[in-house]
Amino acid sequence: MPIVSPATVTPSRCSIARSLEVLGEKWSLLIVREAFWGRTRFSDFREQLGVSSDILTDRLGTLVDAGVLQKIAYREEGSRERFRYELTAGGRDLKPVLAALNAWGEQHRPSGAGPSAIYRQTATGEPVSLVFRAADGTILRDDEVEVVRGPGASVYPANL
Amino acid sequence: MPIVSPATVTPSRCSIARSLEVLGEKWSLLIVREAFWGRTRFSDFREQLGVSSDILTDRLGTLVDAGVLQKIAYREEGSRERFRYELTAGGRDLKPVLAALNAWGEQHRPSGAGPSAIYRQTATGEPVSLVFRAADGTILRDDEVEVVRGPGASVYPANL
Repeated sequence: MPIVSPATVTPSRCSIARSLEVLGEKWSLLIVREAFWGRTRFSDFREQLGVSSDILTDRLGTLVDAGVLQKIAYREEGSRERFRYELTAGGRDLKPVLAALNAWGEQHRPSGAGPSAIYRQTATGEPVSLVFRAADGTILRDDEVEVVRGPGASVYPANL
Repeated sequence: MPIVSPATVTPSRCSIARSLEVLGEKWSLLIVREAFWGRTRFSDFREQLGVSSDILTDRLGTLVDAGVLQKIAYREEGSRERFRYELTAGGRDLKPVLAALNAWGEQHRPSGAGPSAIYRQTATGEPVSLVFRAADGTILRDDEVEVVRGPGASVYPANL
């Protein structure tokens, strides 16, 4: 029997895999990062990331289809209609994903130049950290947390 | 001036981009997920993920080079030497990245089958959540956290 990717045949059961269907292609999370910086324009994304227009168009389309970005028409005086891309509520919910990637990169792949992004409490300007919290409010170390299979993992190979 | 990807020319300043250099290719984070499930063998990764041997070899090599997995030789009685792949301490530090992707996928791309993975407190079996915590221990909502540029973001285009 040929080996095929179950992900291309059946919807993935795994939430990580389903997230990566939207976010896992090169550039997608960097586009989201730029959107968190407040960038909204095609040309800004292209110039900041140095990505080709074709690929950027594709990735923006995927992110819009998945409800991460919304595409909004606007017109500046004397110009033709253009579009800007803004994070949806679902897109803004990616903040912990970016913060987790940022923290891991800072720790395990340091640039030597200090952090390029700092996640901080808006009200105080103090840095924040991303932590696991138990149901009773206890803060847990990562090694006090385990991953176990849930009901959605019951069917193989659809458990991707 | 041609647009090139700064990421291919200079080391990325952004911790997210540096993380994605290791983790951003298709399959890489799914391999890490499988490693968290306890899988260690090439053949298990290949069969669980339905990924080709060539691609799996490439991704495992990247993850080993980046210090996420370690490649350990072993020999079962009567067999030739084989290798297994185990998470390093740095690889285990990816737990929050996977938990954040899992939570986002559960919320925004639900499969309808319930969660395939549950992150829970080892000691109690109770589910845990990933939250932002302020320096003084206060738990913050995501919208109470902002992202600002740090010292590593000062040089453009190397601020990727």
